[in-house]
Amino acid sequence: MKQLKVQLGDRSYPIYIGQNLFVDSELLTRHINANKVMIVTNTVVAPLYLEQVKKSIESSGKQVDVTILPDGEQYKTLETLNVIFDGLLQHQHGRDTCIVALGGGVIGDMAGFAASCYQRGVDFIQLPTTLLAQVDSSVGGKTAVNHPLGKNMIGAFHQPKAVYIDINCLNTLAKNQFAAGMAEVIKYGIIWDRDFFDWLGENKSQVTELSSQSLTYLIARCCEIKAEVVSCDEKEHGVRALLNLGHTFGHAIESEQGYGAWLHGEAVAVGMIMAAKTSLKMGLIASDEQDLITQLITLYDLPTKHPNDMQLPEFLRHMAIDKKVIAGQLRFVLPTSIGAAELVANVTQETLKQVIVSD
Amino acid sequence: MKQLKVQLGDRSYPIYIGQNLFVDSELLTRHINANKVMIVTNTVVAPLYLEQVKKSIESSGKQVDVTILPDGEQYKTLETLNVIFDGLLQHQHGRDTCIVALGGGVIGDMAGFAASCYQRGVDFIQLPTTLLAQVDSSVGGKTAVNHPLGKNMIGAFHQPKAVYIDINCLNTLAKNQFAAGMAEVIKYGIIWDRDFFDWLGENKSQVTELSSQSLTYLIARCCEIKAEVVSCDEKEHGVRALLNLGHTFGHAIESEQGYGAWLHGEAVAVGMIMAAKTSLKMGLIASDEQDLITQLITLYDLPTKHPNDMQLPEFLRHMAIDKKVIAGQLRFVLPTSIGAAELVANVTQETLKQVIVSD
Repeated sequence: MKQLKVQLGDRSYPIYIGQNLFVDSELLTRHINANKVMIVTNTVVAPLYLEQVKKSIESSGKQVDVTILPDGEQYKTLETLNVIFDGLLQHQHGRDTCIVALGGGVIGDMAGFAASCYQRGVDFIQLPTTLLAQVDSSVGGKTAVNHPLGKNMIGAFHQPKAVYIDINCLNTLAKNQFAAGMAEVIKYGIIWDRDFFDWLGENKSQVTELSSQSLTYLIARCCEIKAEVVSCDEKEHGVRALLNLGHTFGHAIESEQGYGAWLHGEAVAVGMIMAAKTSLKMGLIASDEQDLITQLITLYDLPTKHPNDMQLPEFLRHMAIDKKVIAGQLRFVLPTSIGAAELVANVTQETLKQVIVSD
Repeated sequence: MKQLKVQLGDRSYPIYIGQNLFVDSELLTRHINANKVMIVTNTVVAPLYLEQVKKSIESSGKQVDVTILPDGEQYKTLETLNVIFDGLLQHQHGRDTCIVALGGGVIGDMAGFAASCYQRGVDFIQLPTTLLAQVDSSVGGKTAVNHPLGKNMIGAFHQPKAVYIDINCLNTLAKNQFAAGMAEVIKYGIIWDRDFFDWLGENKSQVTELSSQSLTYLIARCCEIKAEVVSCDEKEHGVRALLNLGHTFGHAIESEQGYGAWLHGEAVAVGMIMAAKTSLKMGLIASDEQDLITQLITLYDLPTKHPNDMQLPEFLRHMAIDKKVIAGQLRFVLPTSIGAAELVANVTQETLKQVIVSD
């Protein structure tokens, strides 16, 4: 088992990465002070992991209640959030409860946001079961639900008490879900670590064949980078924004196509290709580096083109409410080489139009 | 004009108390960095103050949008909160927006909670228009909405950038709303300041005749006490809990009777009398001091008895999810003399039953 730490003063917390973590009762309850625990999961994950997690926590003598939500991004709403509050109140959970998020990014975002505002803030821990949640959304304390007019528009920064990444979960993950997670993995290579980017290209078969050694390295490297970035800039006033590479284009695709139609990672993959093309048009990245980005995304069986029915007006409509807008000015994360990226404000509509047409 | 400060490090903020503040454009925009502002108000307050506030902010060159909510505690819900998000997104407000809460406690709680979670946190300022909001809810950063199973169960700690208390607003306030505010005023005397408690008894006519000198003193003293308590204990790990005197009984009454049936301050008034009786039964307060509490609450035309249809089981059902419950143990704020109170954990059901029967 590997252990990392997110350094945030009195809100620091550990990330555990390994196999069979969910059946380790001592480990799983090490950061739970509460007598009552609420597991939040969904209809797909519950049959796979709920019983073992519940048993591990109950064996320490705690009362464990369960809220099972429907599966999918389309349920990441205020209405579904209320189902979690209903469960907490019906079972009389106090301010000293602990919420356990057992699932992918949607479950982590919702359970985390519920924890941030139930009784104005209670503890939670993350048990991410998808690759995307393991390498990205379970670490860093961003929580949110969607609004019909914009993704992740309602949320909070609320750090978990611990993150448990059991790589066994990836054995049951659908292929498209695994690929979607790889989009966020590739993102770390593009914005931060050229060696890691190269490693991903060279180790494709070990990764997709789920070699536990390769997966442990891959997940740990992503979490290390994320922990480093979040420790520097918890509330995204600066460098943390780079983690949004591909997300401005990607969120527009997700919102326009209807939440759940595209997986988040799929939209981010296309978004990263569009960001690299934008960078190329603006002369910020070399052409061969831009090619390498497209190649690696293609290698991991991710989509590379945005939906045909989306042109400049459709993208602009959603981008206008991107969280990186300041004083009405949209800002894009653009790669400047493999391993480096910048936040760029002066992207013209003409450039965007060319990128969209050429894509 | 009087000015106080809530000391909270880099989240410190000023409270301005005086007359005609809403028409002072420079003062009103002094703490707004945003180019876009969203005023959140309700159908009762809008006809009275919206135009002057809007004009004052617009005259500084900012874009001002408005969300008007229905009036009343029964609308303090997640559903109504979404109306604020709709407005912000429709008008494309970014993370650099500022929300202006123009109204009573319900508007302040909802606008503040919306500010805490819109794009994971934006600025807001408080323009409280009721006595209750001016002396209590606009200061201290507690924000929340209700859940059918419990009052203020979903919320956040999110401090405003400034609070503007215009005492002219009290000229248009309904008598029962004024009395409800006085319940929270009396609370400060009971838990913190015997001299202030005595002053309230001696100056009843000046206060209820809305003498501006008396009101300015009264509001400033309440805000001073609240600022002092909040500066010591922002997130209610200790002394801040004393501000909840009367609220455990009071919230039970509000929840049981249906939000909006009783004004919050009316329920708190009865709750304070019940807390004092509990204290007397437990030998924690002298009988004559307990009498003084009932007398002052009566003097300000507040209710003194809980609804007939509420007995021990009805109270216990709501109290079980009070936010002061720790490890299943309910804790009550009980006055120990005029000017002092304690958080007490060992109140028996038998004591509660006697208090409810005798009330």
